[in-house]
Amino acid sequence: MRITFCCTDTKPEPWLAGLRLALPQAAVTLWQPGAPLADHAVVWAPPQQFFDEQTQLQGIFNIGAGVDALLKLHLPPGAQVVRLDDAGMSVQMAEFVCHALIRHFRELDGYDADTAQGKWSYRKPRLRADYPVGIMGLGVLGQRVARAVAGFGFPVNGWSQSPKHIAGINSFSGTDQLHAFLQASRVLVCLLPLTPDTQDILNAQTLGQLMPGGYLINVARGGHLVDGDLLALLDSGHLAGAALDVFRTEPLPPEHPFWHHPKITVTPHTSARTLRDESIAQIAAKMLAMQGGEAVAGVVSLQKGY
Amino acid sequence: MRITFCCTDTKPEPWLAGLRLALPQAAVTLWQPGAPLADHAVVWAPPQQFFDEQTQLQGIFNIGAGVDALLKLHLPPGAQVVRLDDAGMSVQMAEFVCHALIRHFRELDGYDADTAQGKWSYRKPRLRADYPVGIMGLGVLGQRVARAVAGFGFPVNGWSQSPKHIAGINSFSGTDQLHAFLQASRVLVCLLPLTPDTQDILNAQTLGQLMPGGYLINVARGGHLVDGDLLALLDSGHLAGAALDVFRTEPLPPEHPFWHHPKITVTPHTSARTLRDESIAQIAAKMLAMQGGEAVAGVVSLQKGY
Repeated sequence: MRITFCCTDTKPEPWLAGLRLALPQAAVTLWQPGAPLADHAVVWAPPQQFFDEQTQLQGIFNIGAGVDALLKLHLPPGAQVVRLDDAGMSVQMAEFVCHALIRHFRELDGYDADTAQGKWSYRKPRLRADYPVGIMGLGVLGQRVARAVAGFGFPVNGWSQSPKHIAGINSFSGTDQLHAFLQASRVLVCLLPLTPDTQDILNAQTLGQLMPGGYLINVARGGHLVDGDLLALLDSGHLAGAALDVFRTEPLPPEHPFWHHPKITVTPHTSARTLRDESIAQIAAKMLAMQGGEAVAGVVSLQKGY
Repeated sequence: MRITFCCTDTKPEPWLAGLRLALPQAAVTLWQPGAPLADHAVVWAPPQQFFDEQTQLQGIFNIGAGVDALLKLHLPPGAQVVRLDDAGMSVQMAEFVCHALIRHFRELDGYDADTAQGKWSYRKPRLRADYPVGIMGLGVLGQRVARAVAGFGFPVNGWSQSPKHIAGINSFSGTDQLHAFLQASRVLVCLLPLTPDTQDILNAQTLGQLMPGGYLINVARGGHLVDGDLLALLDSGHLAGAALDVFRTEPLPPEHPFWHHPKITVTPHTSARTLRDESIAQIAAKMLAMQGGEAVAGVVSLQKGY
């Protein structure tokens, strides 16, 4: 097995060492232009030149859950694209989303502002029945988040492309049921893959259907959100706030109004980080399985885009 | 049934109306000095005069989980003290503690400080295996919190007076095992009842045994914590921070150093608020059960103090 590694913004040495340890029979090398042909690739945001040269790839392993950027490139024909299907990301996503939800629901920013002024004052407790949480995207990450949110007693709605039945979740699916799903939700969590169908899906029309005082948590991709529509709905008061971890351009440009908006919490795409050890173990196991002719989880449908 | 209501810092009208609705046969009145004798009382922080006058009480229902303040008074002999045993409080406690834990573990205050300066920067993810969470007190609230924390994949240690066996929790008990429990924990959550045995239990000696970089979450009573010992351990760097919801004097006095300490998050005793509707339903059901000679949950042992 010849493995080539081509990951932008990633320190290569520990990955190379980890992959060599996990797959001692494989030749693992860092890609550079003109490198010999490999049969497997571990990638994050590679240049087009990488795929133009590496024409013999059978498996392309993306070290993240989202493959939207990868699928914009011309890939070698016949190669399977495999994404991480958990590798420690779903629990991070669950804790990040629950934190943002509780912070908003319990008005903890308001309490922090009070105590910064030395003020000891109560707020009337909100009822969780008034805060149904809608989760868009019910893959590995979405289901894990839905379970965690339901565990805190919030009513949970789920929306996905194809119908899913998950205990304790009110499930909606397809374009037909999108509005019913939104109208039944006050907090909206986006965990969708970014595809042509879901690009710009968080817009004036959809966000405007959330219950008044709605709150958006976007932990998927910046391309899901129409930035100006969110700002208008925050200004009108229909939405109470947003926690945004992903942006159309990353890093978020210095002049962008999200940075210092009083109703928006910005984090630098950190909701679910790739954990190296878990990822290497998962990728190595899948490479061996594929080599043995077995099916593996996380193979991307080039047609669906996820 | 004659019910008298005597709750400091509580608007009486909605409680009286709710109790009358739940117990239409009962006479429900707001206590005032010289009022007729009742057989049941609903109380929060009543004056000693209340119990001096109300000598015929059979059931004293406390509208909170902690009865430490109540048990400092002289109670009429033969009266049973009953505390709320959940009434919507355990889920609030679970979400409050998980929020504080995730905020610390994921360095979200650090990210907020960065974004306030327009800085897009990553921090190396911490490993949850390095953050075992110790929970002191494994009653209704403690067990609910332990379950929620374990659900996010943190190792969980539990410590209680008497041995308890709870799936997924490393259980410790009694004074003998306190140090082993502390040494195995980096985050410490206090949910103990306040009794003479647990007064000042969070002190230099105990907190000093936590793993370096320890973090304290106190959602029980201010009397558990020796304030100066916490400050010294924060100054020395042995503890990384604390989230404090309860204080020796409440409201926290304006001059207290906790208010503006950079490593301490203060909230005004709001981690688990008494929810009126749930509490009235629970108290009414218990009054009827006691009247029918049945045993009810939440009867306080005057000897143990909880």
